[in-house]
Amino acid sequence: MVRMAGATPVFIPLRPKPVDGKKWSSSDWTLDPQELASKFNSKTKAIILNTPHNPIGKVYTKEELQVIADLCIKYDTLCISDEVYEWLVYTGNKHVKIATFPGMWERTITIGSAGKTFSVTGWKLGWSIGPNHLIKHLQTVQQNTVYTCATPLQEALAQAFWIDIKRMDDPECYFNSLPKELEVKRDRMIHLLESLGLKPIVPDGGYFIIADVSSLDADLSDMKDSNEPYDYKFVKWMTKNKKLSAIPVSAFCNTETKLQFEKFVRFCFIKKDSTLDAAEEIIKGWNRQKS
Amino acid sequence: MVRMAGATPVFIPLRPKPVDGKKWSSSDWTLDPQELASKFNSKTKAIILNTPHNPIGKVYTKEELQVIADLCIKYDTLCISDEVYEWLVYTGNKHVKIATFPGMWERTITIGSAGKTFSVTGWKLGWSIGPNHLIKHLQTVQQNTVYTCATPLQEALAQAFWIDIKRMDDPECYFNSLPKELEVKRDRMIHLLESLGLKPIVPDGGYFIIADVSSLDADLSDMKDSNEPYDYKFVKWMTKNKKLSAIPVSAFCNTETKLQFEKFVRFCFIKKDSTLDAAEEIIKGWNRQKS
Repeated sequence: MVRMAGATPVFIPLRPKPVDGKKWSSSDWTLDPQELASKFNSKTKAIILNTPHNPIGKVYTKEELQVIADLCIKYDTLCISDEVYEWLVYTGNKHVKIATFPGMWERTITIGSAGKTFSVTGWKLGWSIGPNHLIKHLQTVQQNTVYTCATPLQEALAQAFWIDIKRMDDPECYFNSLPKELEVKRDRMIHLLESLGLKPIVPDGGYFIIADVSSLDADLSDMKDSNEPYDYKFVKWMTKNKKLSAIPVSAFCNTETKLQFEKFVRFCFIKKDSTLDAAEEIIKGWNRQKS
Repeated sequence: MVRMAGATPVFIPLRPKPVDGKKWSSSDWTLDPQELASKFNSKTKAIILNTPHNPIGKVYTKEELQVIADLCIKYDTLCISDEVYEWLVYTGNKHVKIATFPGMWERTITIGSAGKTFSVTGWKLGWSIGPNHLIKHLQTVQQNTVYTCATPLQEALAQAFWIDIKRMDDPECYFNSLPKELEVKRDRMIHLLESLGLKPIVPDGGYFIIADVSSLDADLSDMKDSNEPYDYKFVKWMTKNKKLSAIPVSAFCNTETKLQFEKFVRFCFIKKDSTLDAAEEIIKGWNRQKS
């Protein structure tokens, strides 16, 4: 998308801190401030930020966002802040909007999603929040491409907001009840993956868990297309042989960072308990085979 | 869109036959077969066809479509056939799908619309019909842009088809009842426009009527933006001064054909009877002012 807009994408990976023994958390993955600063110059038009982060589940802290905000202001750079998982944040973490930082409102487009907020990804509705001088250009593109969103679903979404905004302090409010419900599922999935001998990265937000799966020693020798990265082959193998499905993490990477992540796959835990029960059965069987 | 795809658009206008005295019909507007043939050469990748036609309401006959099909086959050209008004065809006319002509299925993508078929334009659902070797490329684009349509509305659409396909011969079937209902509204709107002294082009399909409005001698002198075409200024003037709204036809034209149509505006007749009643009152008042 960046290239189609005539721009040159510059990538910066999250890098892990050593954790020796402790559980790995998404907060152990950080942007190196020096490395980040080195990527900015007078030609830097915009930065794309994603918090809570897909696929790693990182929730950027206020301090981390301040580093980004300072660079945006110094280099007069726009910030496109993808915050579609903003309500899916787990105990001990807080989602912060970079648009609320001094000097950032006028240069930030914040992106939200009805699909992620109300668990209706099939509705294809979302929103962008920003100052008029930025949003008016998005309106031009919208008018000439998408033209309109599905109006009956927009009405339903407006009603959903109307209901939940009036009860923000109520545990029944969907903004509160969904992350509560998901935190239990997250912990259950972490436990399942650990039972396989994996060291999953515990996410602070979102509904995905990534884990290095190379220790499972899957026999991928009869997977066709040997040019594919390890994670692509692994998820095909696991889907076919274990009836358990995941997403290859290198799909999220550019060529430079692919190597760093090609042993990782992404598991999704926003699933019915009966589906997680079935996953548990599969993983128990897998463990019996291994031993 | 054609230019964004890296291609060069070539335009060919429908041209009117003289009708001396008779009502003007959309069937009096035709493609000149020689002119059409002159636009084809070995570099012609695709033709975009629209029948029933928006904005003129023309329903291409079998003979007219055969001319296009022959050229497509001769020059190995794809046909993108926009047939979104396929069910909105009035007495004495029949919609024909060019994909049903010998040699055309394998080179035609037929486009349909739930919005137009079931009067739910806010649903943003449609379909493309064609052979696998063409549709697979549309699937790639869909997967990487739109990704998915609104799934609850897709389910409702499937149910609507399921109901109406089983009663195609029943006058209650929406495919039959809607054009019946609209034909009355079309005739009423034609009558209204004629009462203003206009000579509207009676459409054989669709739900729009175009008419040359220059005879109304609207006083456009205080319309700003004097560089705009006549029809743009006229519709703004009419919306503001008469509370009656229409679409400028030159919006559908390229620079070469703009001149031919800039005195035409497009009226829409798929409206509640109460809305048409209100239009009638406005037009009666307008007539009183004129006399």
